[in-house]
Amino acid sequence: MSTDIERTDQVTADLTTITDDEIFRSHEGGKLSVELTAPLETKRDLSIAYTPGVAQVSRAIAADQELVKKYTWTDRLVVVVSDGSAVLGLGDIGPRASLPVMEGKSALFKKFAGLNSIPIVLDTNDPDEIVETLVRLRPSFGAVNLEDISAPRCFEIERRVIEALDCPVMHDDQHGTAIVVLAALLGAVRVQSRDIAGLKVVISGAGAAGVACANMLLLAGIDDVVVLDSKGIISAGRDGLNDVKAGLADRTNPRGLSGGAAEALSGADVFLGLSAGKIAEELIASMAPRSIVFALSNPDPEIAPDVAAQYAEIVATGRSDFANQINNVLAFPGVFRGALDVGARRITERMKLAAAHAILSVVADDLSPTMIVPSPLDPRVEPAVAAAVAAAAKEDGVA
Amino acid sequence: MSTDIERTDQVTADLTTITDDEIFRSHEGGKLSVELTAPLETKRDLSIAYTPGVAQVSRAIAADQELVKKYTWTDRLVVVVSDGSAVLGLGDIGPRASLPVMEGKSALFKKFAGLNSIPIVLDTNDPDEIVETLVRLRPSFGAVNLEDISAPRCFEIERRVIEALDCPVMHDDQHGTAIVVLAALLGAVRVQSRDIAGLKVVISGAGAAGVACANMLLLAGIDDVVVLDSKGIISAGRDGLNDVKAGLADRTNPRGLSGGAAEALSGADVFLGLSAGKIAEELIASMAPRSIVFALSNPDPEIAPDVAAQYAEIVATGRSDFANQINNVLAFPGVFRGALDVGARRITERMKLAAAHAILSVVADDLSPTMIVPSPLDPRVEPAVAAAVAAAAKEDGVA
Repeated sequence: MSTDIERTDQVTADLTTITDDEIFRSHEGGKLSVELTAPLETKRDLSIAYTPGVAQVSRAIAADQELVKKYTWTDRLVVVVSDGSAVLGLGDIGPRASLPVMEGKSALFKKFAGLNSIPIVLDTNDPDEIVETLVRLRPSFGAVNLEDISAPRCFEIERRVIEALDCPVMHDDQHGTAIVVLAALLGAVRVQSRDIAGLKVVISGAGAAGVACANMLLLAGIDDVVVLDSKGIISAGRDGLNDVKAGLADRTNPRGLSGGAAEALSGADVFLGLSAGKIAEELIASMAPRSIVFALSNPDPEIAPDVAAQYAEIVATGRSDFANQINNVLAFPGVFRGALDVGARRITERMKLAAAHAILSVVADDLSPTMIVPSPLDPRVEPAVAAAVAAAAKEDGVA
Repeated sequence: MSTDIERTDQVTADLTTITDDEIFRSHEGGKLSVELTAPLETKRDLSIAYTPGVAQVSRAIAADQELVKKYTWTDRLVVVVSDGSAVLGLGDIGPRASLPVMEGKSALFKKFAGLNSIPIVLDTNDPDEIVETLVRLRPSFGAVNLEDISAPRCFEIERRVIEALDCPVMHDDQHGTAIVVLAALLGAVRVQSRDIAGLKVVISGAGAAGVACANMLLLAGIDDVVVLDSKGIISAGRDGLNDVKAGLADRTNPRGLSGGAAEALSGADVFLGLSAGKIAEELIASMAPRSIVFALSNPDPEIAPDVAAQYAEIVATGRSDFANQINNVLAFPGVFRGALDVGARRITERMKLAAAHAILSVVADDLSPTMIVPSPLDPRVEPAVAAAVAAAAKEDGVA
């Protein structure tokens, strides 16, 4: 029943030639620059862009605050905000060390969505202070991409920032991941001519991505979701659950399973790996026929994709050197672009679902076991996602 | 004794053709954009700039925080920070309406000093909150240009931000103005073959610029400085002075003058206008022979320069359409560039004095009554200022 995993050898060959020296050299001075949108060469240019001309524009905005969207860059400016508490696989490395990641994220916003973006890293882990700081900065930007903030603080922080600000706010580690996972799962079941609703899904990891994926899959109509954390299956009876996990326990695990990965995976249809943990080959072997394995831990998947493929019909990872790369860059550029295009005040569940379907739509005619999602570099993705998200924002009345 | 004021007719002709429509159109979408310093076209590019390559850089910074200066943009990033409380001649128009000015300032940093710069406008006027916010944002930038914050709050805020942060911080409305005023005054006295120390100087305005100019001129060796606010001469005996003005009263007005502009200007050598107020022709006429008038209020000088020139030997304004334009852009790009070039931890008095002398040095061989400072667009200024500031930082041991 297994499908060969295609190693995309060209890319692999390239990646293996990247040296540390090349990586460090390419980061020297950072990855972003601020440029002028119009020349400042003459006194006349200065008189238009700065004094005395600029006073006209400031006076107009003072009289009608909404004009700030038209006459400044803020309406197309996404701030990538982090406290550096949960960076990649590196953990709590602090705001300074997180900056190269945030600059990279800002670069992706520009490259894939044409949006301006700047990194804002905060020298505090306190949710009150993070929320308060963004409230004070509110006039400086148009949208907030929260990034690499550790769970469970990330849930409270996102909820409170959304409440406090009248602009699109999304913690990408949660919802970007969830959108692309849903798109990939929709692609996988379409390849298999199965219905998503009947799937038994096991999620390994109850951090930012795990919780958001569980919620997204439930929203998409899957009833049987079981979530594992480091102590095993999250179930209503378990002691010591924090609020977030207690909430998950209420919404998931409908068969009332208890135990660990072995109990969860036996007979399951889908394994969704979102933790740094490993999963033993025999547990993948114990899944139902025609199983689907998304081993998304980076850089080391929970199980090697070629091993998983001995048992699973469809395998995906987070890596660019295997087929079916599940990468947030398929979602966040279009989500923010679509939201900002229509002046959305928030990002709703309908907008996220629309994004997932739009990602899938790009490869609908090309679906195969090794193409359940588009390539992260597919230029058709962002416009499709942006259009779908913008339309959903209007349907939801938030734009 | 008067010198003709040269109207630079070419520039005047240009400026008068600027329409409101042109100003507003040129501001649509804002004046800044964020760009990538390296291409992100291939999976290989992504693997270097983002995952997995970026993890190497983050790990290195986590191990040695100083490396953040080498491998991110922050070391060359000036944040232009305002609460919008004292914008141009417009007053307290708030953070949103101030944004076009701050974007313009950021554009000038790029254009004149090659530094990246972003505007940060804050939805609070509270000094505690402004300082606290910048402390939390500290890992995100390399230097702070405070802008258009009202007096006397600006003095406390600048002092506290300097104390709290280990990077260059300068309130440009204070010190940028003071540096260029000193440069121009040094130029004027050199034209006149006089000594700066013996001048009697009257400053009209005890706001951010007035206070900073008074301090700078005292520092430069002028003993007789008299400062006027809306109530008249600031003197030790006056009731109701705030802390800043009481301090000024201690350091200025050595002849113990009281009264208003008439008493101050009678027999004075220099009038320095830094308020929106007007000054009557007969008061300028009452100044000492060979007087110097800097009427810097924008867009309307305290006295029309052609009127002032009937009495004064040297006249300067803040306007681009008269000779001797005193514009902060002569100072702040080079000051920040020089400070960042050597990793200065603060901006000292010696660095400011060095900047003033460097501005003057550019036109030392071309000095005339109508060329006491370089043109704001003179490309020789910023490198000269940066080099002098960098050298002074080393002399002061702050780099």
